[in-house]
Amino acid sequence: MSIGEQHIVRSFDEELRRLDDGLARMCGLTEAQVAGALKALAERDLAAAARVAEGDRLVDECERFVEEQTLRLLALRAPVADDLRMVVTCLKVATNIERVADHAASCARRVLGLAQQPTPAPMRAVLRLGLLAQQLLKESFDAFLSRDADRARAVWARDQEADALYSSLFREILTHMMEDPRTITVGSHLMFIAKNLERIGDHATNIAEMAVFLSTGRTLSGERPKNDRSSFESGAA
Amino acid sequence: MSIGEQHIVRSFDEELRRLDDGLARMCGLTEAQVAGALKALAERDLAAAARVAEGDRLVDECERFVEEQTLRLLALRAPVADDLRMVVTCLKVATNIERVADHAASCARRVLGLAQQPTPAPMRAVLRLGLLAQQLLKESFDAFLSRDADRARAVWARDQEADALYSSLFREILTHMMEDPRTITVGSHLMFIAKNLERIGDHATNIAEMAVFLSTGRTLSGERPKNDRSSFESGAA
Repeated sequence: MSIGEQHIVRSFDEELRRLDDGLARMCGLTEAQVAGALKALAERDLAAAARVAEGDRLVDECERFVEEQTLRLLALRAPVADDLRMVVTCLKVATNIERVADHAASCARRVLGLAQQPTPAPMRAVLRLGLLAQQLLKESFDAFLSRDADRARAVWARDQEADALYSSLFREILTHMMEDPRTITVGSHLMFIAKNLERIGDHATNIAEMAVFLSTGRTLSGERPKNDRSSFESGAA
Repeated sequence: MSIGEQHIVRSFDEELRRLDDGLARMCGLTEAQVAGALKALAERDLAAAARVAEGDRLVDECERFVEEQTLRLLALRAPVADDLRMVVTCLKVATNIERVADHAASCARRVLGLAQQPTPAPMRAVLRLGLLAQQLLKESFDAFLSRDADRARAVWARDQEADALYSSLFREILTHMMEDPRTITVGSHLMFIAKNLERIGDHATNIAEMAVFLSTGRTLSGERPKNDRSSFESGAA
């Protein structure tokens, strides 16, 4: 390999490292946003909720950096084959992370609808779903950033757990609203919060799939152990 | 220009045309999915709902084609500057279209929860929101496929209309549930359907923004006339 070729190889790696740094920053910010939203929810803390709602634009800025860096890499290095697929996959991961942050901000905004109300009974189960989504997300981020296929497969296998928890929670909130119609407004906010948390779990699973692809070059899609019945009962997207 | 260069130029346009054909097919399928979901909803037609739920994978296949074609274009032609930005924007448009189709499929699945129930009073307003979302979507697709910036700007300016309709609908469904707690289950499905329809309008606005960018090279983001208060009241994502 000539010195010129070595220089090009090193530069591509350097550009990739910048892309990965951007993604790592995006993961960190988004984990903090999800943690903030759950804290705001658990403590019905309006100031914390407002901070999360406001913080969403930092994640958006991060996504723009990742996108610019991707365009830079494509323009300057014109990667092909596996390298190209890896760069485009990073762009897709960024889209998923940005969606997670959107869901966290939505949860935070809903906290305003719950303020000055007694703690609704299903809150405990909502927070349990939140904790699970948070764990799946952390694992998927770690698996992705460390290109650890085994860790990613473990997240992927747990998708059903979040789906099942969401389905039972949906029924619990409905029952709660029927037993005490004064809780209908609060219950409807809880339903959307639960949906946001379940969607965070879905995005974690998407990111895990992409992490497997990045570390092995093979896809997992099509084999996803998706609980179709639950999505029919309680709606998917 | 040498014959060799002419050949390369023509080939790039040819590859672009294939990418655009894929996107046009994806737009057509997705419009049909949204129309099918609204019809299933209006007529509480379970067979039609099942067809839409099943048809979602055709849109997913289309998205995979667009992605493969994008990778092919990037690998074979290594576009730079404006061409590169255009290709990556097409990939982002495809992501938005796929999300629209997901929302249509979710609406269709919810129809199962409404079956064998009397028509709930807020259904009329839900269908009105559906019609608006469908119009915004069609306009955004046409603007994008014909690279018509004026048409795209018109979609973009109407985003607030869908947001306002959704907010008033959310309150109407809540009131309906409170007045007659037997409608709580149906009402909660209607809420999620309304949210799906409002999200379709959001994606239409995103696509319109990208259409403006593709025809003018300038972005609209940041100036979006977003009704922030309504999203605080009734949750965003």
